[in-house]
Amino acid sequence: MKKNYLLTPGPTPLPPYVCKALAKKIIHHRTPQFQVVLKEVEENLKYVFQTKNDVYILASSGTGAMEAAVANIISANDRAIVIDGGKFGERWTELNKVYGANIELVKVEWGKSVDPKIIKDILDKDKNIKAVFATHCETSTGVSNDIEALGKIVKDTNAILVVDAISSLGAIDIKTDGWSIDMVVSGSQKGLMLPPGLGFISVSPKAYKLVELCKTPRYYFDLRLSKKALAATDTPFTPAIGIIIALDEVLKDMRQETLEVIFARNKKLAQSTRQAMISLGLELYAGKDSSDSLTAVRVPEGIDGEKLVKTMRDEYGVGIAGGQSQLKGKVFRIAHMGFIREKDLIVCIETLEEVLSKMGYKFEKGKGVKTIEKLLG
Amino acid sequence: MKKNYLLTPGPTPLPPYVCKALAKKIIHHRTPQFQVVLKEVEENLKYVFQTKNDVYILASSGTGAMEAAVANIISANDRAIVIDGGKFGERWTELNKVYGANIELVKVEWGKSVDPKIIKDILDKDKNIKAVFATHCETSTGVSNDIEALGKIVKDTNAILVVDAISSLGAIDIKTDGWSIDMVVSGSQKGLMLPPGLGFISVSPKAYKLVELCKTPRYYFDLRLSKKALAATDTPFTPAIGIIIALDEVLKDMRQETLEVIFARNKKLAQSTRQAMISLGLELYAGKDSSDSLTAVRVPEGIDGEKLVKTMRDEYGVGIAGGQSQLKGKVFRIAHMGFIREKDLIVCIETLEEVLSKMGYKFEKGKGVKTIEKLLG
Repeated sequence: MKKNYLLTPGPTPLPPYVCKALAKKIIHHRTPQFQVVLKEVEENLKYVFQTKNDVYILASSGTGAMEAAVANIISANDRAIVIDGGKFGERWTELNKVYGANIELVKVEWGKSVDPKIIKDILDKDKNIKAVFATHCETSTGVSNDIEALGKIVKDTNAILVVDAISSLGAIDIKTDGWSIDMVVSGSQKGLMLPPGLGFISVSPKAYKLVELCKTPRYYFDLRLSKKALAATDTPFTPAIGIIIALDEVLKDMRQETLEVIFARNKKLAQSTRQAMISLGLELYAGKDSSDSLTAVRVPEGIDGEKLVKTMRDEYGVGIAGGQSQLKGKVFRIAHMGFIREKDLIVCIETLEEVLSKMGYKFEKGKGVKTIEKLLG
Repeated sequence: MKKNYLLTPGPTPLPPYVCKALAKKIIHHRTPQFQVVLKEVEENLKYVFQTKNDVYILASSGTGAMEAAVANIISANDRAIVIDGGKFGERWTELNKVYGANIELVKVEWGKSVDPKIIKDILDKDKNIKAVFATHCETSTGVSNDIEALGKIVKDTNAILVVDAISSLGAIDIKTDGWSIDMVVSGSQKGLMLPPGLGFISVSPKAYKLVELCKTPRYYFDLRLSKKALAATDTPFTPAIGIIIALDEVLKDMRQETLEVIFARNKKLAQSTRQAMISLGLELYAGKDSSDSLTAVRVPEGIDGEKLVKTMRDEYGVGIAGGQSQLKGKVFRIAHMGFIREKDLIVCIETLEEVLSKMGYKFEKGKGVKTIEKLLG
């Protein structure tokens, strides 16, 4: 039986206590027993989101929470800035198109972060912009965008700032209140170390005013229903009970470890991974804009990127991610967040070296492992 | 430590093999390993749905799948018949209102099933009706509607038949193809013995034509994306991987046991429960229209229904459901589906007798247990 190591940027591996919590007998959601869980979860979500705003839990994956953001803010013909620098920026674009937004599309070259000044210029010229949709960590390219800078720009305008933090929340620093982010959207299967199935969205008072005015039809993702239910320690529809019970454990664990310690660990893992890649002569796809959630690496010339990922997974049991859309076969991606630790990355880089070597890539064998061992040591 | 018995009509108890499957290490969803699961699940879902149509899996609870049905069929001002005889019929009404349907509302007295002739008359008069929204088992009242009769009526019209089978699928007979049901909507936490977090929807070719014509904005629940993904053994967005892996086990188990055996068991449990209630001098809320998924019972005069449910749950560890909306405090509801077995019902009725007796209800003590034991014996 093969032992598997999961280093994909979502889902990320589950800690043993999460598996144990998921295996518990189910309880009914409209009981004082489940309300205790919901109360604890809500309080600890605020800690992880670094906010005093409500955080709503949806029974959906992250895209459902993204849809909630758009469908509760954008009425047909509303003006919106969409920052689109990868597959998940494209998702904001698609959602805004579907809901009839009049889009000011800020296309960013894949592998680069957005220049906040561009956003400032648009907002200065157009006072009718209702929302700016941004991506914190663009999972498809490994780029981290400067959300703090965007927050400073959007804060004093009529617009709200909506951030996809699906692969950043709980992995790298994101200060919802400190950076003036009106809506932070996330999911369960990345920094929060859970199976997919929960979406999250925090809503500032400034954003909630727009929610109340929004004319778009919505029901399952209607945040007015979420707000009303939360006030009664309830959810508007049957919640994903099992994953929420495991979330309760995760959040208590994270709170005990503290965000500072978690972010520092991931940063160290990220820096070490990047150095190891460079030591193998490989190129970081996101260069200086690389996120500390995951590292995207260019597949070297002449190597079949899809085969590389497939071989590592199917022959060695080491799961990393390939490229998506236009990057198919051109990058591979290694996560360093959630329950991924030093030894997982050593296993990953050791395997990567072995497979790259077999596939004919020329490099000094052992250098990647030596580099990461030294940096993590 | 108290031992708990769960007899609520959703969530229903998890079999031990489900708990075990939920506790497994997570795998990535875009892998051949997960595709094996998806293929098996799709084939076995068709068995449980009794259909050759596609069955789409959504990362949502049942209401999400209901929204998918409405948002993919109803454009603003479309004519729709909504059969509304309880809290979940109301949900069809609310969803249709949100999406701008021009509703022909068929209000049915709570506790009664719909008279199919009423639907026939409306369809005969109005050829522009696009869809008929019905509820198979109305969980709030314990009523089972005659979907087979509705299917015969709707079949030869321009309209499609959409059925909420959330608390009936896998619990009582529902023949998607045999009864000409165009969309069957369900969820994971009832007859399928899983935690909540998955929604399902089957789509007939007649319904899919309307999906393609529908102008309503949708994205996360866009069934065109589901269809395209399914053809590639994929899902449009990150699926609820963990619950799907457990679903695979459940469906194999159900297929081995066969639907016939499962339906016959639930029917026997239902009949015995109803007789036990009558033997205690209690009244069945749904009378002759009672579903074999759950039994709704009127709280006797002078007894506090909410306290009854609370006492059974918090003092005896026996979870049954109270009434919802206008039935709050007026009924209690006992499920007999999924992994609920003879002994659970004996425990439930024994406890019910004890608590009713303490609360001052006059009846021949022991008669309920004796009745169900005899009938199940």
